[in-house]
Amino acid sequence: MKRVLLLDTTLRDGTQGEGVSLTVVDKLRIAQKLDELGIAYIEGGFPGANPKDQDFFQSAKSSLRLKHAKLTAFGSTRRPGVTAEQDEGLRVLLDSQAPAITIVGKAWDFHVHEALRVTLEENLRMIADSVAYLKRHGREVIFDAEHFFDGYRYNPEYALSTLSAAADAGVDWVTLCDTNGGSLPYQVAEIVGAVVEALPVPVGIHTHNDCELAVANTLAAVERGATMVHGTINGIGERCGNANLASIIPNLELKMGRNCLPSQDHLVHLTEIARFVGEIANLVPHSYQPFVGHSAFAHKGGIHVSAIARNPETYEHIRPELVGNRRRVLVSELSGLSNLQHRAEEFGVDVRDRKDEMRQLLTEIKELEYQGYQFEGAEASQELLFVKKFGDYRSFFDVEAMRVEATMSVDSSITSEAILKLVVAGETVHTVAEGNGPVNALDDALRKALMPSYPVIDTMHLTDYKVRVLDEKEGTAAKVRVLIESTNGFDVWRTIGVSENVIEASWEALVDSIQYFLLRIAQRDDAQVS
Amino acid sequence: MKRVLLLDTTLRDGTQGEGVSLTVVDKLRIAQKLDELGIAYIEGGFPGANPKDQDFFQSAKSSLRLKHAKLTAFGSTRRPGVTAEQDEGLRVLLDSQAPAITIVGKAWDFHVHEALRVTLEENLRMIADSVAYLKRHGREVIFDAEHFFDGYRYNPEYALSTLSAAADAGVDWVTLCDTNGGSLPYQVAEIVGAVVEALPVPVGIHTHNDCELAVANTLAAVERGATMVHGTINGIGERCGNANLASIIPNLELKMGRNCLPSQDHLVHLTEIARFVGEIANLVPHSYQPFVGHSAFAHKGGIHVSAIARNPETYEHIRPELVGNRRRVLVSELSGLSNLQHRAEEFGVDVRDRKDEMRQLLTEIKELEYQGYQFEGAEASQELLFVKKFGDYRSFFDVEAMRVEATMSVDSSITSEAILKLVVAGETVHTVAEGNGPVNALDDALRKALMPSYPVIDTMHLTDYKVRVLDEKEGTAAKVRVLIESTNGFDVWRTIGVSENVIEASWEALVDSIQYFLLRIAQRDDAQVS
Repeated sequence: MKRVLLLDTTLRDGTQGEGVSLTVVDKLRIAQKLDELGIAYIEGGFPGANPKDQDFFQSAKSSLRLKHAKLTAFGSTRRPGVTAEQDEGLRVLLDSQAPAITIVGKAWDFHVHEALRVTLEENLRMIADSVAYLKRHGREVIFDAEHFFDGYRYNPEYALSTLSAAADAGVDWVTLCDTNGGSLPYQVAEIVGAVVEALPVPVGIHTHNDCELAVANTLAAVERGATMVHGTINGIGERCGNANLASIIPNLELKMGRNCLPSQDHLVHLTEIARFVGEIANLVPHSYQPFVGHSAFAHKGGIHVSAIARNPETYEHIRPELVGNRRRVLVSELSGLSNLQHRAEEFGVDVRDRKDEMRQLLTEIKELEYQGYQFEGAEASQELLFVKKFGDYRSFFDVEAMRVEATMSVDSSITSEAILKLVVAGETVHTVAEGNGPVNALDDALRKALMPSYPVIDTMHLTDYKVRVLDEKEGTAAKVRVLIESTNGFDVWRTIGVSENVIEASWEALVDSIQYFLLRIAQRDDAQVS
Repeated sequence: MKRVLLLDTTLRDGTQGEGVSLTVVDKLRIAQKLDELGIAYIEGGFPGANPKDQDFFQSAKSSLRLKHAKLTAFGSTRRPGVTAEQDEGLRVLLDSQAPAITIVGKAWDFHVHEALRVTLEENLRMIADSVAYLKRHGREVIFDAEHFFDGYRYNPEYALSTLSAAADAGVDWVTLCDTNGGSLPYQVAEIVGAVVEALPVPVGIHTHNDCELAVANTLAAVERGATMVHGTINGIGERCGNANLASIIPNLELKMGRNCLPSQDHLVHLTEIARFVGEIANLVPHSYQPFVGHSAFAHKGGIHVSAIARNPETYEHIRPELVGNRRRVLVSELSGLSNLQHRAEEFGVDVRDRKDEMRQLLTEIKELEYQGYQFEGAEASQELLFVKKFGDYRSFFDVEAMRVEATMSVDSSITSEAILKLVVAGETVHTVAEGNGPVNALDDALRKALMPSYPVIDTMHLTDYKVRVLDEKEGTAAKVRVLIESTNGFDVWRTIGVSENVIEASWEALVDSIQYFLLRIAQRDDAQVS
């Protein structure tokens, strides 16, 4: 199989998307996941433009463990009228200590005049000097030729000369960028074919989705000899976004016979990673998204559903499991029992000869999912459902009363107070606590109430709290879904709550988290006794 | 210019999308809009499968005024073993009185065996009989060859023979369907080229987006001679959806020199119609959507913004006005004084000779963004900042006291109550309201307090409510960002609040929304008086 190398720029070009803003910690978590998927180059940021990105490259050294990927820093060619050695931006790129460096330069004469305002010759020197300088310092260098396709259409000789300037200076890759996203596949194919023929260095492709053609343009370029592909997970990026790697990867691997991951086994992580990036960036998941979307293999039409039951190939272009997604049959009871069996085994719950109860549980889960629960991100809450039905469930506390108040103080700030009445180990406990917000106050009041009987809860704490509004069109009366992540330092578990009341949803997820933890501790203690 | 005819199937294939459900009235409203855009064929439904769709065709006769479009009914070839005259489905199609009829039939031998379970010869007779019958009754007939591309790859002779059966029976169009959405553009191009060469009737293309290639596959087919294009507005449809007409239309008209609308002036309705269909279908708008999305011409990167200011062509592939969309310059941590100047002009605020105050405001905005505000999704809150600094700001109410309670009832459900003391037009107003959650209760209490003095607020309501947790690692003590979208039916505006307390953040966004609306109304009234 022919090889294509992937450069993921979710952490750089992706953050130019409207509404996308990632912290350094977010970026590190995404980078680690991209490496698990088997991405070859992770473009982590633009350290010269952004102190947050300098932090990222600093932190990456100690906290990332990369098996497959090379970390890549992004910057631009030197400024006009200085030497490469004098250029602050290039120095910052070297300081990032990234083994690979992308530098962007102008390939369209119009932009050299209009945006850069230098002569065409100076632009060529800026490219050559910058590449040569970075190569002298031992880095792998990728030259991003900005606006290459537009430039080539107006002035092919000059566009090509920018690539030659980079090639002559020893560049490792040149990338042809469709920066404005306005090119059509047949144009991209023709131009890439011409460049691959003319140039002694390997060629990459970087497209944008302004015509809904970024994936097609990328595949057309690969067809014509491009061997590096730039893109972002879920296609996030400026305006209409970048080329979507979550679609490009399976198209290359499954349809075009191109090898872009370390092995095809890595493909099964695709859906999980696409959803992970969506969660971290807090973008509303695009349910119809090809390959990885919640609806991507969802069958609704009556004819489709009955044909699928006979043979999935009738209405599916690939098996969903290949990309870690799953088939869903909408408004139907056909699916699921075997999935459920699988889950039960994972949770160590014995469900043999309990088919009827399994069917009941399946109905309950479907009803909950219909209400907005989504157990894919909340395995602990799902496990509690199994244990309640089949296992050794016990409740560690009962809630008698709960009240939360948010009151405006004289200085107009708002403080929250939670009051709880619980029955814990046979005793009624009445606690009150203040907090930064209503949920924080509830968390503290709950801990106060439980600590005397279960001091072990001091070893666990919440690490993540997410709120997502469902049915957004309902405005403030919409349902919300709260996801809480907790840890005791070793294990991490996630719980969920859904309600029209954000406090009720949070409370549900909070109670599940603590119940789950106490149950696990009790199971462990039981095991040690026996 | 070469002509391409559009067949819109939003009302038929579009409704197979997950979460899409349209009433008869919805369908009539969408059909009328599609006609205004200049669509040639509107596929209104599958009357044989669905009584709702029979109603639609009935109602259409009296309530639709179509200038450009032919209404088209969808059905399938006759059942095996009966004559066309005996077939109930074909009779219902004629009863619909639609001037054009699409009938779908099998083109893949595998499906003839697996799904239909008849002989290959009987399938050909089913196609020929059905076409001939509908033609005898004077209808324009389009034959949708289901799974044509998959069928052609496995058995090209048989796939072609299904088209010939339709052609020999007098069909007006044959449509090649990529039903599973698994084909790549170069495959589509090759096969369409071969069919156009072999067949005496004009050829249409119908693709699905399972590989994120539906638009590209459609354009490839047109390149190779297809002259009818099927698709849906915003690409809604089964699984990953159908080919997106909102992208195909401008690509054909502006990039490929194909004429698919009555005139290019009709293109300016595209954005409005895409959003209208999204609203009616109650789907979350896809902000990044090419051509028509809210972010499609939104510029965020600093380099991009300064270049755009000099010449929009530097980072825009088309002028946004051509498709009825508009350019947006996002103000973020990346931007400088020129972004701000641009905003001030948009807001109609005069900032000439006020450079120092502009710099102050920029510093304030950056400080707020550092705290977690993000004004690119909340222009109304940003405009309030401008008006407070440079314009004619006035406060319509003052908050004296605010309290929200969430209390658990006997049945364990949690109810919320909000109590407000405001000064409105010199009077102290004290109100209380219950709600589905704390924010909903606050919204209601605020409306109660303001209605007597400002009855106009009855004409506005909240349409969207988003919560984003910042610094997620802080668990329940993390900061949250709340975005609220409001509308009065004509305009839409967005406001923001940030706090560690979700109630405080929501309250801030809520107050901004109502202040903004009242300010706008006051400005309008002032303008009318003067």
